[in-house]
Amino acid sequence: KSPYKIAVIPGDGIGKEVVPVGVRILQACAKKYGFEVQLEHFDFASCDYYERHAKMLPDDWVEVLSRFDALFFGAVGDPKRVPDHISLWGSLLLFRRQFDQYVNLRPARSVAGVPGPLRNPGKIDFWIVRENTEGEYTELGGKIFHGTQREMVVQETVMTRVGIDRILEYAFDLAQSRPAKQLTSATKSNGISITMPYWDQRVAEMSKRYPDVKVESYHIDILCAHFVQKPSSFDVVVGSNLFGDILSDLGPAVTGSLGLAASGNINPTGKWPSLFEPVHGSAPDIMGQNIANPIGQLEAGSMMLRHLGQPQAADDIILAVNAVLGRGKPDELTRDLGGQASTTQLGDAIEREI
Amino acid sequence: KSPYKIAVIPGDGIGKEVVPVGVRILQACAKKYGFEVQLEHFDFASCDYYERHAKMLPDDWVEVLSRFDALFFGAVGDPKRVPDHISLWGSLLLFRRQFDQYVNLRPARSVAGVPGPLRNPGKIDFWIVRENTEGEYTELGGKIFHGTQREMVVQETVMTRVGIDRILEYAFDLAQSRPAKQLTSATKSNGISITMPYWDQRVAEMSKRYPDVKVESYHIDILCAHFVQKPSSFDVVVGSNLFGDILSDLGPAVTGSLGLAASGNINPTGKWPSLFEPVHGSAPDIMGQNIANPIGQLEAGSMMLRHLGQPQAADDIILAVNAVLGRGKPDELTRDLGGQASTTQLGDAIEREI
Ligand SMILES: CC(C)[C@H](C(=O)O)[C@@H](O)C(=O)O
Ligand SMILES: CC(C)[C@H](C(=O)O)[C@@H](O)C(=O)O
Repeated sequence: KSPYKIAVIPGDGIGKEVVPVGVRILQACAKKYGFEVQLEHFDFASCDYYERHAKMLPDDWVEVLSRFDALFFGAVGDPKRVPDHISLWGSLLLFRRQFDQYVNLRPARSVAGVPGPLRNPGKIDFWIVRENTEGEYTELGGKIFHGTQREMVVQETVMTRVGIDRILEYAFDLAQSRPAKQLTSATKSNGISITMPYWDQRVAEMSKRYPDVKVESYHIDILCAHFVQKPSSFDVVVGSNLFGDILSDLGPAVTGSLGLAASGNINPTGKWPSLFEPVHGSAPDIMGQNIANPIGQLEAGSMMLRHLGQPQAADDIILAVNAVLGRGKPDELTRDLGGQASTTQLGDAIEREI
Repeated sequence: KSPYKIAVIPGDGIGKEVVPVGVRILQACAKKYGFEVQLEHFDFASCDYYERHAKMLPDDWVEVLSRFDALFFGAVGDPKRVPDHISLWGSLLLFRRQFDQYVNLRPARSVAGVPGPLRNPGKIDFWIVRENTEGEYTELGGKIFHGTQREMVVQETVMTRVGIDRILEYAFDLAQSRPAKQLTSATKSNGISITMPYWDQRVAEMSKRYPDVKVESYHIDILCAHFVQKPSSFDVVVGSNLFGDILSDLGPAVTGSLGLAASGNINPTGKWPSLFEPVHGSAPDIMGQNIANPIGQLEAGSMMLRHLGQPQAADDIILAVNAVLGRGKPDELTRDLGGQASTTQLGDAIEREI
């Protein structure tokens, strides 16, 4: 319920350029639809902060951030300054776990005015539901025989029944709410012989509770091929942390809209704040030029407003983005879209639509 | 040196239909180029064999197969009859390890007459070099809290310095032998925080020995996106067992030739026999109809002859395949290629070219 308390965390690189555009649009929506957003800005979860404090976050970050209804996030990472596994495990990946944001939700959707790479894409409109807290992303394992010829590393993948079942439940519910009622599960049980057969078993178990949902399983290798060969055949796709990561970059890439996509890191219980971010990273190579495309950040804002219970405002952002993309005027589009507009100018054009 | 001793293992499903075509073409090449092939057929490494013997292989398989110069393999697996993790771990994956076939080599190459899914593919011509014996494919791990809410599974990824270095060496050598001298390494060190940073470290180390090879690293998620966005920019791509598996299906899918691709499972030392197979699986759903496309099996034959030291015969197979594909006559092409020919008829057409 309004006022919505939102923590704004720009992070690194172009995060600092696209988040302000996102904030402006959130405020425009609030004004138009008569709700209130209380925004508080934070400079942590960035490599700047790390260089000053030798840590990614202040000690009281859990307390500070859990007071918010949602986290509006830019992008983190600048590997030339701080190794990714430090900056990411010390911020984004930590949020996902601490706030139990066990669903990572991303759309793969054709966008009018944005030509994709495929000759005959058909109508692409599906969701990727990614397990976001366990699986292949762990810090369990280590190295033995340091520095010798026999040196080796081991890392453990961990999948729990609770962890798998809750993401499957979310994915089955989502599939059931859609006209096609079709769920595709990503597996690799023919090669990864312990965790993946268990995943398959849980899928089979859960599907008994959803007799009206049509379920298919594909090994990740052939599933990636199908994303390219017949992307219009998917409805809801569910995968482990790693497989979901791969599929949720590949899906948007196939639609041509990877640079425009958003990602929700969702705690469906509402016990902890959910986090919304663009899929593109911090792109330190183009930062400081005001040329980054802010649309991914706006899509993240739209997902956030929908999550907070403002579906009309959420739709309005999408409509405004589509209107600007659809008319394709070079002075309203950033370079990646073939125009000459700055980040700010594209933001202005979208704000005028709202 | 001729005579070449070749073990022929059709396996399951359409393997039994395409391998005979492959054998015919090998014999035609032998006749034309004046070398000899001694072929011996085996019915093990199939679900038929499993149903008769409750195991995938006879007890003396290592002894039997190590007498051969190469293994000419069809496809294994029929999950309705035997679970994949049994049939595959009991045959193909066992061969790869027992015969230390640590390189899995697959091309991604545009084929004239075979339209791919991309609008502007450019000229796609690169190799995927996959580590084929360790990494994510293990049988290490297990389950705890069976049948309770707390049930969980753990599985270990294992990467050794020896294992990583030898595949990198193969990939760097291959890149160095090509005009572009460009190597792309697949990583995920931002999420998978132990094994993948180690992989990156070994890449950095090895690259010191190849100052003329240009090396780039991409996280697997964005690399999959790049395969779709700019496939013509790759030269040699190297990845772990799992990442290589994904990339070597996605790469050929992007060229439109996944159904035509072959895979070499190579022991570069020559100590053990190498295995050559089509990338497509056993496709039990279309078996018995004589409609499977045999070209993947022929490409496997070509790779095998090149490996055995018959590059002219190897080239000849490719030329013959390209000639038939290029003229695009429906009565010489199988259904997947838009024609009406049977497996045998497409084989006849290619044999006539040799
Ligand atoms: C069948 C399966 C175990 C195998 C693999 O993943 O290695 C296959 O996909 C391949 O690429 O040869
Ligand atoms: C930055 C990285 C750790 C992250 C991930 O793999 O989860 C990103 O790729 C994403 O998908 O949000």
